[in-house]
Amino acid sequence: MSQIATRRDFIRRSLKYGAVATAGAAGAAAGIASLRPQPLFAETPKTYDWPWPYVKLDPEMGRKLGHDSYWSGKGCSYAGFHGIIALLREAVGEPFNTLPSEIMIYGHGGGVDWGMLCGALNGPAAAISLVCEKKVADMLVSEMFAWYAQTPLPTDLANQYGVEKKYAVNKFDQTIKACKSGSPLCHVSSSTWCHENGMEITCLQRKERCARLTGDAVAHAIQLLNDNHDGKFKSAFAMPETTTACNTCHGEGGEKVDALTKMDCLQCHEDHTKS
Amino acid sequence: MSQIATRRDFIRRSLKYGAVATAGAAGAAAGIASLRPQPLFAETPKTYDWPWPYVKLDPEMGRKLGHDSYWSGKGCSYAGFHGIIALLREAVGEPFNTLPSEIMIYGHGGGVDWGMLCGALNGPAAAISLVCEKKVADMLVSEMFAWYAQTPLPTDLANQYGVEKKYAVNKFDQTIKACKSGSPLCHVSSSTWCHENGMEITCLQRKERCARLTGDAVAHAIQLLNDNHDGKFKSAFAMPETTTACNTCHGEGGEKVDALTKMDCLQCHEDHTKS
Repeated sequence: MSQIATRRDFIRRSLKYGAVATAGAAGAAAGIASLRPQPLFAETPKTYDWPWPYVKLDPEMGRKLGHDSYWSGKGCSYAGFHGIIALLREAVGEPFNTLPSEIMIYGHGGGVDWGMLCGALNGPAAAISLVCEKKVADMLVSEMFAWYAQTPLPTDLANQYGVEKKYAVNKFDQTIKACKSGSPLCHVSSSTWCHENGMEITCLQRKERCARLTGDAVAHAIQLLNDNHDGKFKSAFAMPETTTACNTCHGEGGEKVDALTKMDCLQCHEDHTKS
Repeated sequence: MSQIATRRDFIRRSLKYGAVATAGAAGAAAGIASLRPQPLFAETPKTYDWPWPYVKLDPEMGRKLGHDSYWSGKGCSYAGFHGIIALLREAVGEPFNTLPSEIMIYGHGGGVDWGMLCGALNGPAAAISLVCEKKVADMLVSEMFAWYAQTPLPTDLANQYGVEKKYAVNKFDQTIKACKSGSPLCHVSSSTWCHENGMEITCLQRKERCARLTGDAVAHAIQLLNDNHDGKFKSAFAMPETTTACNTCHGEGGEKVDALTKMDCLQCHEDHTKS
């Protein structure tokens, strides 16, 4: 698409939508889509519906697709999103067909390898936000994060598929020792697994571990969405006890009110109440 | 949309696309969109283009829109995404018009208030992934994370807009003291600001600080995208020196190879080389 065509289209659409946007001369000269005082979020032309429709999906299809998509070269976060969105493309069609799963690629390795939010969670969380209103998404995504932190991963089922070569992509067909990371952070999760197994983070088994737990996260997200769809969602994972205790002082209503987090505080901080 | 209509549509589309998907009897009985052995990611019917088109945008429009959208009730991550996508809707139109910015809501408070990846970064990172191929997105997103960690935020410009009441939403019209958090983690960033200013995390100033730095992140992301569009992007922020040093042992090629992260190690770990 040429810059000129784009600007012409832009002006045409601005008129069509009756938006306050107009092309600024300086911006036009610099090839910048410059707009006059920006329409407020509430006034932005809105041509989409949200949430997008959700129909119940098969968690086991998601577990396999999430795993296989990890090996696409686009990483865990893409795979975690694609594992849900591709099934919704099949089941619902538009508007899912037009949305590239590649929007979530950046989440790999906890955000372009920075080791923050595990990509296997980031992808499914975006899918949940797309098909649920905020209050519901907040509840389901938080449940997914807590499940991940407190569950030995990969699950037995993910390992079984690997051993029985039931994945479409089979890079490693042995059981991978599960570990509970206590955190939805990529760095904590992947390094904990390395330490518990005496493995290097660059090895094939660690990558296959991430592929299998990506599938696990997709399957779990689908189960949460299905349960919510049927009106029978119940939270099964609470915040770590230490976090609840720390929040009595550091959280809202406490003496300090200087922290907003649900992570396990003692993974990074000393317990100063015991010193 | 009724379950029945959806399943009928699903079968029709399956035939139309010649996909291997078929409705399973068990799945149909349970109202689940069950598919036979899942088409591989490579075989999934693909009806979209990616990356989506990017045209140069005005960073200052993004700074204001990112700020204002924070106060929409949908949070920082939505605002960080919307600050770019809404401008692309104006400048390009489809396919941006059909994509709800609400897909990124879950990123608020570092992921439904878990305190991980700062939502002001999560939103723009998704926008970058949408309009750039993986190699370019990896580079720009990592640069944005490093910029955030090493820059006193909110910026002078974000404060100036606040003092001069140039935002469409004015909740607080005084300068907010900037601080450098050293991390793209929400928890580290917000708690560091509280400690440096003796403020509670629930106060209006902290929220307005997050609104202003969301605008800053949107503006910075747009600048990175513009520079890349013009073929003149240059990285300005390196990994912290401590992280580089730690990675000589713990990273790829080192003795341990048990960590994959670009965060500042010493924010959570003791420096064992000095003990």
